[in-house]
Amino acid sequence: MEFLVRIEIARPADADGATVQALIAREAAHAATLIAAGHLLRLWRVVGRWANISIWSARDGTHLHELLTALPLYDWMRITIEPLAVHPSDPGASDAT
Amino acid sequence: MEFLVRIEIARPADADGATVQALIAREAAHAATLIAAGHLLRLWRVVGRWANISIWSARDGTHLHELLTALPLYDWMRITIEPLAVHPSDPGASDAT
Amino acid sequence: MEFLVRIEIARPADADGATVQALIAREAAHAATLIAAGHLLRLWRVVGRWANISIWSARDGTHLHELLTALPLYDWMRITIEPLAVHPSDPGASDAT
Amino acid sequence: MEFLVRIEIARPADADGATVQALIAREAAHAATLIAAGHLLRLWRVVGRWANISIWSARDGTHLHELLTALPLYDWMRITIEPLAVHPSDPGASDAT
Amino acid sequence: MEFLVRIEIARPADADGATVQALIAREAAHAATLIAAGHLLRLWRVVGRWANISIWSARDGTHLHELLTALPLYDWMRITIEPLAVHPSDPGASDAT
Amino acid sequence: MEFLVRIEIARPADADGATVQALIAREAAHAATLIAAGHLLRLWRVVGRWANISIWSARDGTHLHELLTALPLYDWMRITIEPLAVHPSDPGASDAT
Amino acid sequence: MEFLVRIEIARPADADGATVQALIAREAAHAATLIAAGHLLRLWRVVGRWANISIWSARDGTHLHELLTALPLYDWMRITIEPLAVHPSDPGASDAT
Amino acid sequence: MEFLVRIEIARPADADGATVQALIAREAAHAATLIAAGHLLRLWRVVGRWANISIWSARDGTHLHELLTALPLYDWMRITIEPLAVHPSDPGASDAT
Amino acid sequence: MEFLVRIEIARPADADGATVQALIAREAAHAATLIAAGHLLRLWRVVGRWANISIWSARDGTHLHELLTALPLYDWMRITIEPLAVHPSDPGASDAT
Amino acid sequence: MEFLVRIEIARPADADGATVQALIAREAAHAATLIAAGHLLRLWRVVGRWANISIWSARDGTHLHELLTALPLYDWMRITIEPLAVHPSDPGASDAT
Repeated sequence: MEFLVRIEIARPADADGATVQALIAREAAHAATLIAAGHLLRLWRVVGRWANISIWSARDGTHLHELLTALPLYDWMRITIEPLAVHPSDPGASDAT
Repeated sequence: MEFLVRIEIARPADADGATVQALIAREAAHAATLIAAGHLLRLWRVVGRWANISIWSARDGTHLHELLTALPLYDWMRITIEPLAVHPSDPGASDAT
Repeated sequence: MEFLVRIEIARPADADGATVQALIAREAAHAATLIAAGHLLRLWRVVGRWANISIWSARDGTHLHELLTALPLYDWMRITIEPLAVHPSDPGASDAT
Repeated sequence: MEFLVRIEIARPADADGATVQALIAREAAHAATLIAAGHLLRLWRVVGRWANISIWSARDGTHLHELLTALPLYDWMRITIEPLAVHPSDPGASDAT
Repeated sequence: MEFLVRIEIARPADADGATVQALIAREAAHAATLIAAGHLLRLWRVVGRWANISIWSARDGTHLHELLTALPLYDWMRITIEPLAVHPSDPGASDAT
Repeated sequence: MEFLVRIEIARPADADGATVQALIAREAAHAATLIAAGHLLRLWRVVGRWANISIWSARDGTHLHELLTALPLYDWMRITIEPLAVHPSDPGASDAT
Repeated sequence: MEFLVRIEIARPADADGATVQALIAREAAHAATLIAAGHLLRLWRVVGRWANISIWSARDGTHLHELLTALPLYDWMRITIEPLAVHPSDPGASDAT
Repeated sequence: MEFLVRIEIARPADADGATVQALIAREAAHAATLIAAGHLLRLWRVVGRWANISIWSARDGTHLHELLTALPLYDWMRITIEPLAVHPSDPGASDAT
Repeated sequence: MEFLVRIEIARPADADGATVQALIAREAAHAATLIAAGHLLRLWRVVGRWANISIWSARDGTHLHELLTALPLYDWMRITIEPLAVHPSDPGASDAT
Repeated sequence: MEFLVRIEIARPADADGATVQALIAREAAHAATLIAAGHLLRLWRVVGRWANISIWSARDGTHLHELLTALPLYDWMRITIEPLAVHPSDPGASDAT
C-alpha cells in the first residue's frame, strides 16, 4: 500500500550546528536503507522550505507509523500522511512491501 | 521538472450516463498517451472520492498547464498543483521531459 | 487495517421522496452486509446533520475505496477518510479483514 | 453516550527523558484502568505523529471532561472531542457507562 | 446535559413565500413546545443573518439529534453543535431533561 | 445586550503552581461578583480543555471589554466574542445590565 | 455602540437586469435614510467585488439586526459583523444613536 | 501604486460556447488597452485553472476598482487584491499611472 | 486613499511592566500626532483582546507602510490591512492626505 | 519559468540589533546580485509587515530552491511559492534564465 507523506522540519532553537549536521547525515544514510528496502519510493524537496514530499510503500498504517517514527530527525518533524488507492491507469505501481 | 497534481472531479447535474462513460473512456486513453510521452509518471485514486493524486513531468508551469487543460474531463476538474524540487536522496528521479 | 471514515450526505434538489426512501433502505441493507463481512465495525450519526462517522476494516486504501464507492448513496456522499495505526493499549483491535 | 476524541501530545522543551518515560508508563497504566471501567473503548495512533484517536463512553460531557483532565499526560495534550449519536445500523453499540 | 447549537438557515431557490411563512410559523410553535419541555433553554438571533445560536438540554447526543431533526425547518438548516460541561461557578445550571 | 464569549486559557511556561492556584481562586471569587451583578449569566467548561464558553450581559461592546480585561486571568486568556440579538421565541431573556 | 459590517452581495442567477437596477436604486435611497438617522457612518466598496465594508451606529446587536434585515438587497447579502469598543485615542467617536 | 490581483473565472452553467468565445475575445482586446495605458503590468495563468495572477498600476483602490469592474468577464470573476508597497531593492518599479 | 487596519499586539515574555507602560504612553502620544496629521481617522478596541481596528488615510500602500512601521509598538504588532475604495453613498469621505 | 514568492521574516528573540542590521545589509547586497543575474524580477513590501512579495525567474523548482536557500536571511524566513504559467496577453514576459 502506498502513501503520500509530507514532512516539515523545524530546528529547535537550542540545537547547535554540529548536532544538526550529524542528524542530517544520519537521515541521509537512513533514507538509503529505506530505499533499498523498497519503502521510500520517491522523495522531493518543497521549494523554499526545509520540508519534503515523498511516496512510501508500507504494509499498512501501523507499518508506516513504525517507519516514520524511526527517522533520525523524527523529533523535529511535523508529519501528515495520506493513503493512496491504486488507479487502473497508474504506470508505475510498486510491488515492494 | 516534476509536479504533484491533485484533481477533484465533479459531474455536472445535467450530464447523462452515456456522456459520462464516454468521457471516462477518453480520459483513460488520453492518460495512456501522457504516460507513453513520459509526462504522467504516477497516478493514484483518493480513497472515497472521485479524485486523484498524480506525479507529472513537464518542462515548466506553462507546459504543465497545456497538458492539464487538454484533459478530456478538464471542464469538470478542480486542479491544484505543487512544484517539486529534486532531493539528492530521491531514488527515482525521472529524466523524461 | 482500520480507517476512520466521515461521510456527509446531500440530497440532490431534484430527488423525490420515494427515491430517497428507497436508497436509504438499500443503504441499511448494504450496511448489514458490510457488518457481516467484518468491514464496517462501528457507525454513529453526527448530531444534527445527515452525516455519519464510522470505523472500517479493510486490507488497504484500495480495498476501502472499493467498499465506499459501492455504497448505494455514494453519489450523494462527500467522504473523507483517515488511516489508523494500531495502539498497543487498544482494548478492541479487530482481526477481520 | 459515546465520544470521538482526538489528542495531540507535545513534549515541553525542558522535559527530560526520564520524566517523559515515567509519564508514558503512567499513561499506559491509566489507560488500562479506563478500559476496565468501560470508558475507553478503542484507541489508535495517528500515523506519523505523537497523537491518537479514541472512542470513549461517558455519562455526558461533564463526565468525559473529568476523565480527560485526569490523564497523566493531560498538561501536554491538546484535545478536541465530538459527541456521537447512536445510529440504528451500528453493529457495536457499547452499554458500559 | 447542555449543548451550544448554531443553526444557519438557507431558503431553497424554489420555495415560494407562502411555504416559507407557513414553515416559520410552525417553527415558532415548535419552539414553544421545546421550551415548555425544558429542552430549548435560550435562543438568540445571529446579527445580520438568518441564523441563530441556542442552548439546549438533552439526555445525550442521540436525544439532541432527535430533537433537532424534528424541527420543521430542519431540511433547510445547517447545524453544528458543541457539548458543554458543567462549570462549578455557573450561576444557572438547568436541571430539566 | 448579551454576548457569547469563548475563552482559552494558557498557563505560561514559567508560572509556578502556587501562582496558578492563587489566580484560579481569585478568578472564582471574581466570577461570583460578576454573577451577582448580573453580567455573567451562564458559564460552561469546554470538554477536554482549559477553556470555557459563557453568556454575558453588558451595556455594549465597550462595557464588555472592561469586564473581560478586569478578569484576574486575563493576561493568560485568548478571548473571542460574538454579539447576540434578541430572538422573539427566546424563553430566557435577561434584563440585568 | 459602533459595529464594523462586511457585506458580500450575490445576484441570483434568475434576476433580470431591471430588477437589479431597481433594487440598487432602492438600496441607495435607503442608505441616505440610514445616514440621515446617524446609523450608517461610513461606507466603502471592497476593491474588485460586489461587496462593501461599513461602520454602523446602533443601540445594540438587536437594533443592528433590525437595520440590516430592512436593507432592500438583504436577501442577496451575506453579512458578517464585528462589535467595536471605544478606544480612548479615537478621534471620531460618534454620538448618534 | 501597484497591486497584486488574483482572478478566478467561473463559466455560468447556461453560457453557450459562442458567448464564451466572444467574451474571451473582448477580454483579450480589453487587456491590450489596459497594457497600453500602463495599468496592467504583468499577467500570468494559474497552472491548471481558469484563473490568473497579475500586477496592476492604479492611482488608488478606487481607481483599481473601476478598472476591474470594467473587465468584459467581470460578472464571472471572483477577484481578490493585495496592495503592494515599494521595496527599495525592487529592480522594476513602474511609473505609469 | 483609505485603509482598514487590524492590529493584534503581543507582549514579549521578557518585557517588564515599566517598559510596557512607557511604550503604551509613547503609542498614545504618537496616535495624537497621526490624528492631527489626518492619517488616523478612527480607532476602536477589539472586545476582549489587546488589539484594535482602525481607519487610515494615506497616499498609497507605501505611505501606509511608513506610517505603520513608525508606530512605537510596531515590533510587538501583527498587522493586516485592507485597501478601501470610495463608495458613492459614503457620508464621511475624508480628504486629508 | 517565473514564480510568485511570498516571504515572511521573523527575527529570533535572541538576535541582537547588530546581527540584524548586518544580515539586512547582506540581504540587500545579495538581492542586487540576483537582480543583475535576471533571477529577481520584481520585489514589493507587504504593507505593515516584515514580509515581501516578489517575482522570480528560474530554470525550474530545483533552481528556485537553490536561489532561495542561499538568501542571507533564509533561516528567519517562511517562504511559500507559486509557479506561474505564461499568459498570451502578458506584456512583460522575461527571457532571462
